[in-house]
Parts: sequence; structure tokens; C-alpha cells
Amino acid sequence: MCVFCDIASGSSAAHIVFEDDVSLAFLDHRPLFPGHSLLIPRTHHETLADLPDELVAPLFRNARLLSEKIPKVMGAVGSFVALNNVVSQSVPHLHVHVVPRRPKDGLRGFFWPRMKYKGGEEEMAEVAEAIRSAIEAS
Amino acid sequence: MCVFCDIASGSSAAHIVFEDDVSLAFLDHRPLFPGHSLLIPRTHHETLADLPDELVAPLFRNARLLSEKIPKVMGAVGSFVALNNVVSQSVPHLHVHVVPRRPKDGLRGFFWPRMKYKGGEEEMAEVAEAIRSAIEAS
Repeated sequence: MCVFCDIASGSSAAHIVFEDDVSLAFLDHRPLFPGHSLLIPRTHHETLADLPDELVAPLFRNARLLSEKIPKVMGAVGSFVALNNVVSQSVPHLHVHVVPRRPKDGLRGFFWPRMKYKGGEEEMAEVAEAIRSAIEAS
Repeated sequence: MCVFCDIASGSSAAHIVFEDDVSLAFLDHRPLFPGHSLLIPRTHHETLADLPDELVAPLFRNARLLSEKIPKVMGAVGSFVALNNVVSQSVPHLHVHVVPRRPKDGLRGFFWPRMKYKGGEEEMAEVAEAIRSAIEAS
């Protein structure tokens, strides 16, 4: 069984912050900051790639709503909206993290450990071409 | 002027990985990992909260597509799909990061510095109620 399906069906308790016909959102028990919520489709889809077409708009409209409301309620000024597919995905039921953010809240420094393309523009052109081709071929 | 609007209009160069009528995606110059792309709407909207209804489905369908294709092309197994609103948002034109992920790629440990609700279930119930009320009142 899936722990998020259990929450969606009501057989496991959670602190619900939002629900509608296709999705619900509840507080993460180990938040980055208080108010950090997880938005899930009610039906079981493992990753974003698995999400059916008809759920894309309602799910991300709700992510948009939460990204506006959660910071306001928590006295924050911004938000972080993110989802992990496969790697770092603790529960294999698609969940969108919505996290309230404040300037200097400590996340920035380690959040984006950027690198550079060692091969410069040439390597970038090759990588971009590879991705473009894969998409065009699909 | 907005640097991402300049890329969308073609007046600034970028390594484009995908484009359609409403959006385009290009390589981030300072990636977390090679293949890290930024998906933007062609029109200027600052945050997710500002994204018009009619763009939600096409933009996130494209995020779904990139979340599937980029890992495959880069030899990765998962992806990280994220957007920053206001805080940590380097360019005030909505952009969705799509980043290929591999197990033990080094991001996990510092990526999710979780805390706990000091007030336990009681504090969680209060926070959830505050968010629910704000959404219901809107």
C-alpha cells in the first residue's frame, strides 16, 4: 500500500490544508519550514511523467494557489515549489512540495551548488542538441 | 528589460532545448548538473501566482515532457523539477528548473535540511487550519 493513497482515502490521518476532487495537500511532518505542504493527486501516479493529461491543469492550478496562500498565512514573502522524480523521492506517489520562503532563511547557500560546463559553449551546444533531438524524435 | 524575455524573443542567444507556441526551455549557464534546463512562458509573468489560467496546462505539460526526456538523454534516472517564487528567484520571469538526478549525486544531504514542529501535532493542526481558512476565504 501507498502511504499517500492512504491519506487521500482518509484511512491515514494528515493535517490537510486543501482538498478538491482531484487532489489534496497536507503538512509535511519534517518540513523545511512550518507550513511546508505536499500536494498530491488523489489517484496513484508515481512521477510527473506518469501524470495523465487531464490532471496536469488542476494539479498545477492548485500548486499555484498554494504558492500564493501559504507564504501569506505564514508571514513569508516567497515560495519554493518542487517535486522529485525517482531520485530523492521518499514516497513513490507524485507530490509537489510547496514551501514558504523568506530572505536569508538559510536555504540559499547550499540550495544551488552550481557548476560550470567544463567544455564551455561547445559542450552546451552538444547537450542542447541531444535533448532537442530526443524530444523531436518522440 | 528582462533577460528571459530577450531569450524568448530571440534577441539574446541561449542553448534552446525545446520550444513551442507558449514556452521555451534552454540550458542554465550555471547548472546543478549538465542538462539542467529552464522552462519559461514566452510572455512575462513574474511568479507562479501570476501565471494566467490558460498557460498552466501547456507549461506544466512541457515540464512533464522535459522531466522525462532530459534524464534519458543525460543518462540519469530521475529529475528535480522546481521553481522559486520571489526568494532565491534570480530572474523575475517565471522559470521552471528541470534537473537530471542520479543516486548519490551529492544533492540529497544538504538539499532537504528538515526540521520538526516544536509544538508537535497541536502546532501542525493550527498551521493547517490557518492555511485552510485562508484558502476557503479567498
